[in-house]
Amino acid sequence: MSAEARYSETIEAEGHLIDSHILNHVFDKVIERGAAYEVLQFDIGRTNDDPSYVKLKVTASSPDVLRELVKELVPLGAHLVDQRDARFEPAPKDTCVPLDFYSTTNHRTQVRKSGRWVDVEHQRMDAVVVDDGAHLVCRKLRDVKRGDRILCGVEGVRVAPEARDRERHGFAFMSNDISSERRVEVSVAKVAAMMREARAAGGKIAFVAGPVVIHTGGIEYFVDLVEKGWVDVLLTGNALPVHDIEYALYGTSLGVDLQTGSPVEEGHKNHMRAINTINHAGSIAAAVQQGVLKSGIMHACVERSVAYVLAGSIRDDGPLPDTLMDLIEAQEQYARSLEGCKMVIMLSTMLHSIGVGNMLPSWVRVVCVDINPAVVTKLADRGSAQTLGIVTDVGLFLHQLASKLEKTDGKQP
Amino acid sequence: MSAEARYSETIEAEGHLIDSHILNHVFDKVIERGAAYEVLQFDIGRTNDDPSYVKLKVTASSPDVLRELVKELVPLGAHLVDQRDARFEPAPKDTCVPLDFYSTTNHRTQVRKSGRWVDVEHQRMDAVVVDDGAHLVCRKLRDVKRGDRILCGVEGVRVAPEARDRERHGFAFMSNDISSERRVEVSVAKVAAMMREARAAGGKIAFVAGPVVIHTGGIEYFVDLVEKGWVDVLLTGNALPVHDIEYALYGTSLGVDLQTGSPVEEGHKNHMRAINTINHAGSIAAAVQQGVLKSGIMHACVERSVAYVLAGSIRDDGPLPDTLMDLIEAQEQYARSLEGCKMVIMLSTMLHSIGVGNMLPSWVRVVCVDINPAVVTKLADRGSAQTLGIVTDVGLFLHQLASKLEKTDGKQP
Amino acid sequence: MSAEARYSETIEAEGHLIDSHILNHVFDKVIERGAAYEVLQFDIGRTNDDPSYVKLKVTASSPDVLRELVKELVPLGAHLVDQRDARFEPAPKDTCVPLDFYSTTNHRTQVRKSGRWVDVEHQRMDAVVVDDGAHLVCRKLRDVKRGDRILCGVEGVRVAPEARDRERHGFAFMSNDISSERRVEVSVAKVAAMMREARAAGGKIAFVAGPVVIHTGGIEYFVDLVEKGWVDVLLTGNALPVHDIEYALYGTSLGVDLQTGSPVEEGHKNHMRAINTINHAGSIAAAVQQGVLKSGIMHACVERSVAYVLAGSIRDDGPLPDTLMDLIEAQEQYARSLEGCKMVIMLSTMLHSIGVGNMLPSWVRVVCVDINPAVVTKLADRGSAQTLGIVTDVGLFLHQLASKLEKTDGKQP
Amino acid sequence: MSAEARYSETIEAEGHLIDSHILNHVFDKVIERGAAYEVLQFDIGRTNDDPSYVKLKVTASSPDVLRELVKELVPLGAHLVDQRDARFEPAPKDTCVPLDFYSTTNHRTQVRKSGRWVDVEHQRMDAVVVDDGAHLVCRKLRDVKRGDRILCGVEGVRVAPEARDRERHGFAFMSNDISSERRVEVSVAKVAAMMREARAAGGKIAFVAGPVVIHTGGIEYFVDLVEKGWVDVLLTGNALPVHDIEYALYGTSLGVDLQTGSPVEEGHKNHMRAINTINHAGSIAAAVQQGVLKSGIMHACVERSVAYVLAGSIRDDGPLPDTLMDLIEAQEQYARSLEGCKMVIMLSTMLHSIGVGNMLPSWVRVVCVDINPAVVTKLADRGSAQTLGIVTDVGLFLHQLASKLEKTDGKQP
Repeated sequence: MSAEARYSETIEAEGHLIDSHILNHVFDKVIERGAAYEVLQFDIGRTNDDPSYVKLKVTASSPDVLRELVKELVPLGAHLVDQRDARFEPAPKDTCVPLDFYSTTNHRTQVRKSGRWVDVEHQRMDAVVVDDGAHLVCRKLRDVKRGDRILCGVEGVRVAPEARDRERHGFAFMSNDISSERRVEVSVAKVAAMMREARAAGGKIAFVAGPVVIHTGGIEYFVDLVEKGWVDVLLTGNALPVHDIEYALYGTSLGVDLQTGSPVEEGHKNHMRAINTINHAGSIAAAVQQGVLKSGIMHACVERSVAYVLAGSIRDDGPLPDTLMDLIEAQEQYARSLEGCKMVIMLSTMLHSIGVGNMLPSWVRVVCVDINPAVVTKLADRGSAQTLGIVTDVGLFLHQLASKLEKTDGKQP
Repeated sequence: MSAEARYSETIEAEGHLIDSHILNHVFDKVIERGAAYEVLQFDIGRTNDDPSYVKLKVTASSPDVLRELVKELVPLGAHLVDQRDARFEPAPKDTCVPLDFYSTTNHRTQVRKSGRWVDVEHQRMDAVVVDDGAHLVCRKLRDVKRGDRILCGVEGVRVAPEARDRERHGFAFMSNDISSERRVEVSVAKVAAMMREARAAGGKIAFVAGPVVIHTGGIEYFVDLVEKGWVDVLLTGNALPVHDIEYALYGTSLGVDLQTGSPVEEGHKNHMRAINTINHAGSIAAAVQQGVLKSGIMHACVERSVAYVLAGSIRDDGPLPDTLMDLIEAQEQYARSLEGCKMVIMLSTMLHSIGVGNMLPSWVRVVCVDINPAVVTKLADRGSAQTLGIVTDVGLFLHQLASKLEKTDGKQP
Repeated sequence: MSAEARYSETIEAEGHLIDSHILNHVFDKVIERGAAYEVLQFDIGRTNDDPSYVKLKVTASSPDVLRELVKELVPLGAHLVDQRDARFEPAPKDTCVPLDFYSTTNHRTQVRKSGRWVDVEHQRMDAVVVDDGAHLVCRKLRDVKRGDRILCGVEGVRVAPEARDRERHGFAFMSNDISSERRVEVSVAKVAAMMREARAAGGKIAFVAGPVVIHTGGIEYFVDLVEKGWVDVLLTGNALPVHDIEYALYGTSLGVDLQTGSPVEEGHKNHMRAINTINHAGSIAAAVQQGVLKSGIMHACVERSVAYVLAGSIRDDGPLPDTLMDLIEAQEQYARSLEGCKMVIMLSTMLHSIGVGNMLPSWVRVVCVDINPAVVTKLADRGSAQTLGIVTDVGLFLHQLASKLEKTDGKQP
Repeated sequence: MSAEARYSETIEAEGHLIDSHILNHVFDKVIERGAAYEVLQFDIGRTNDDPSYVKLKVTASSPDVLRELVKELVPLGAHLVDQRDARFEPAPKDTCVPLDFYSTTNHRTQVRKSGRWVDVEHQRMDAVVVDDGAHLVCRKLRDVKRGDRILCGVEGVRVAPEARDRERHGFAFMSNDISSERRVEVSVAKVAAMMREARAAGGKIAFVAGPVVIHTGGIEYFVDLVEKGWVDVLLTGNALPVHDIEYALYGTSLGVDLQTGSPVEEGHKNHMRAINTINHAGSIAAAVQQGVLKSGIMHACVERSVAYVLAGSIRDDGPLPDTLMDLIEAQEQYARSLEGCKMVIMLSTMLHSIGVGNMLPSWVRVVCVDINPAVVTKLADRGSAQTLGIVTDVGLFLHQLASKLEKTDGKQP
């Protein structure tokens, strides 16, 4: 940086600065933006359990660069030392917010209001924060109404990325490094342990699943998980229920498909027949009640009162009468179903998994299973510090998982 | 097969039976179902241009297996020798059809009505055929109304899979064999030739594109294609326009992203700012008219009156005011935009590409470009015999393609 | 083709011309080369069991194109109608053959000598055929000696690609279509059935395996296969034995690696320690005899007298004293070990699998297992008509396979 | 950790502890091994240019765990505070070293001898350090002779992982995050800048390349790089030269292959013909001198005196007379060719790239280009902190790169 006039701010951060990579990210961002930092104070946690503290002076060559930089450091976990109350501005019209609105991360966020630090509720990424008088809540842009008071700028905002250290007790070390060259049986044992922990903590467990669950032979194992009480919520699209129902209605009678293991292209007639059958019944639940649908994943979910939400997509045939083709409604039902979940297991569906990932706060544990390492990497990159990526065959994974889990006497406490 | 009573039907097929693999598929299906065939007559085309003819007796051990088998042979291009008029039955209620309804393929289909063979209109796969009195048309299950006369069974139905021989003149041989180990420059020259042919034949050209077009640096080359008049329709989702607009609004001012080539994760703030900006303007077109949006793909489409349809998905943030979150509406607008298209180029979006593939008859030429060979294989498998799959970097592909194409004096004739 | 003088040959082919795709390949090649064909005679097999016969006149615009075309049609299974004895010419010097030498395929080949059709021995691809007086044998170019009588041209040569119909009884239909969206348990049952058939026919079973077998937790299942008597030959490189021995020596004592399932990068020290330990002992077998190596795949192979060949590669550390770094020697030992094998199972090693594939005649059954569909496609494309590709997790595949196979009372009869 | 007796060591580290992730790796390893740390002193670098210093007490529950842990921390960049001279022990016999030998990393390493810190020469990973009286040098296990003095234990050893900060000036930020969703044109500009820097610093540039360079149409661009003087060394196998020569000899005359872009399977005859032709000439260079080989990559390398080494593999046909089938010799020639290289560009060959990666010290800059992200990830994980991974089409990449580079007046100074 030249000797010209410079512009500075002092920021600070505390917590597991090394373990959660906050310090790396902050330093990288400063250098990346062509700015400089000076460490004014650094108190490292003496042991693994102690938090650290850092105070930095960041210097840039223009006020604009400095302002942009500070706006980028706050979501990483740093905040301005000289804290004032946060600023709120009214939304000028529906779905529109002031240009310098604060866009949320999925990390725990606090905002200073009347001198007090207040927790933001319904934390999720890519939302705005609205002060509705009583609470500070995350709201999607499309739900903003004219006059809503919108958090602007980054003053009075504190973000706390999840510390990785908590992961260490149980399931962590694999998550850094996604590879198909892993022993899946070890991963399965960890997933089972995480599921027991989630339940013990009073949390629900949601599955996000694609039709590969059916094609790779996972039906009976997924049904087993449902019947043993481990599935609280099933979030999927149109294809999984269609193929599941097709298999339940025609899989055993035609015979050959089961032998060849190739239901995908063969049965283009049968999948339309399956949809027609459910249309006749009125809904999946009605088909179960009428005795038309007697087996499979959807049957098990109806029987065990597992909540399911089917979100449509542009590629859907049919769709089933239960599939939501209004995506605003689908996103809202997804989000509602995820309330209270402490763990989400994503099985071979990038589309729905990204959708769910966008809705989750970073402290929900996420497991992604896919045979394609690029999908697992993509999901893990977006997710929380708590994400475990597993590259393997989904059908065999479910086989292993179901065999590792005992029956539970019901759902979450 | 044992010496027990057997059940037989005589079927026939004509056309390029070897080249279009009809004979292979028919023989395979017969053996796969545990049945047998006897060739009663076979007249092979003397040269590459002459059609062939085959008459077969197929024999199964039960009437059920035989009936199922014949139902599977008809979509492959065979038909019953002993032809009668097709049978139509009324739909018992909305979205419901008789259980033995005929489910369409994407191939040219004729149905015998009052002794005459009538072409089915709006050919697409996974539809039913409705006789509305004047015409026989493909209709989606969800659009069926009580009382519609629905084609049932396979009597009086003839399907004509595309012959591969036409492909031979120009662009064919690569399509069998999808690999990243290919010379892309050769493929690009063929795609350009196909585009000129499509236009010369009075057809429109549609692009189905995902945000990878932006991330891999394709904006300027895609804009070039638009400005040269080669893009009639752009079908995409919410992400491509969001990232395109984000880049137009902030890409050059912040600078660093352009240098690092990594806009994806960095700009989570900017993509929300971009949506907010369009929300303020009211729509993409309004933002162009107001001078807010001054460059990029969407700007070029507005300026050149290219039709675009943005179909939402469960993972969409925002979305933009132009993005259709009602998928019934989105599918209908997609289908309407594809009318008159003789060629579709799919660029790195499996979701929207499968959606479009479901809507196309098999004689529309399709080119799929993706860096992941599994995506190209999946799309090519579903597509027409005219599909060309190219495994390469999308940004570099667009660079090559734009440089190979001259300016045209407008759109299709 | 223009009205100019044309050049023609008459060729014929017999066998399962439709099922083995011979007719498709011949027609495609003729058109691809810009030539034309006229079908002079075609007798189709009346049923699935009957062979077909075709006689074609192929016409090209120059004698050069015609000659090149015929040279390409012969390996596809066609041959000249007007058969004369094959022509043999002497090799001008070691490793050099006449310019128009015949290059072999991996299909059954017959050569006309003194008016009789003689089977070629040691069939493999990319070899030359040498007449040593008593026999006609495939020989690699590098083994040709000055004066060897080398088959030249394509007159008097008949190639018989494997008919696919034999596959139909048991394991066939999956092979056309490689996908991760399959039920692996079905595939495993077929592989087990193929193994029993291979043994019942007096054949040996070879495994070609890479270190992914270790990393994905396959050791105990592979050992189980060895102990049950299903492994006659193990062909691998340096990495599988190194990681297997590392695991046997240090895996259980250090503990953590077993828990995390991540032995790959962690143990860079241990893999060198393992090699040092075997160097001290002198060889793997010596380490077993001295009681140093007490478990794992290599231990089981030594104990059960399974033949193993370790072929080195440019990336090998160490290597182990048993690893052959002279690749001429390694290829010869591989080829010798494969004699008498009727089945080869390839587990996650593209390098050694392609090496083995090059050595096999097309009638040996091959199963390829890899989590990457591109690898399976590449191997299946090169292989015999008998190749079954399975996209799945190798560790879980071995778990399933070992549980499906009973103990046998020894090796092949 | 329980209240039992504990065992401790004090270690320290200095340098760019945050930026080079040394602190993260050390903390992770301590926790992973079930041990604990206490920070005794931490002085953070005040600015990005200043080094940091840390002193830690690590405590484990047994002396064995502690010893193993310290052995793992030293290669990460930590070292014992209480430094004594390193210990050397004689090798008991050829290829065998004492059980507690020190196994090298690819980072700069210093060893204390007679109270002075001495640099280790020929740094590479997975070697042992030999004191030959005058120098301390890395030596492969297989080259160890009885009586060689071998470095044992970790006392008196200091490792200095590359600091990432140096990367920041020019090409760094992409390397963390490998994705096909990148703008390749930006990456190409950085690679060109790196090449100019390497040359300016007096370094050579080596290319490691596979046959995909040929199949994707890269010949003319690679030749252009050779002719412009940017290629000092070409390290490859048998397949690249075979396909390059096949193309030079037959590519243009047969014509069709160039049109279809599918040389791979088609030319199985031609690749054997190409090998036979070179065998007749005696070697590639002889074929150039005799005027037999007139174009292509190998021709250009001979004409421009570029050093090339062809390392054989188990899958090689032929091979060419120039291909080294003795891998000990091949590894040695590879290593010798790499001396003086400051930059290595790896193009679509995992096998040879891993081989080369094993030979390089961590301060050589490496660029990996492959269309498969898994390959790029695997190579980048093994490589230096200076590795840049690019997921794209290799032929198009070379096209871009050649067009960005000017002619140089020769090789390195």
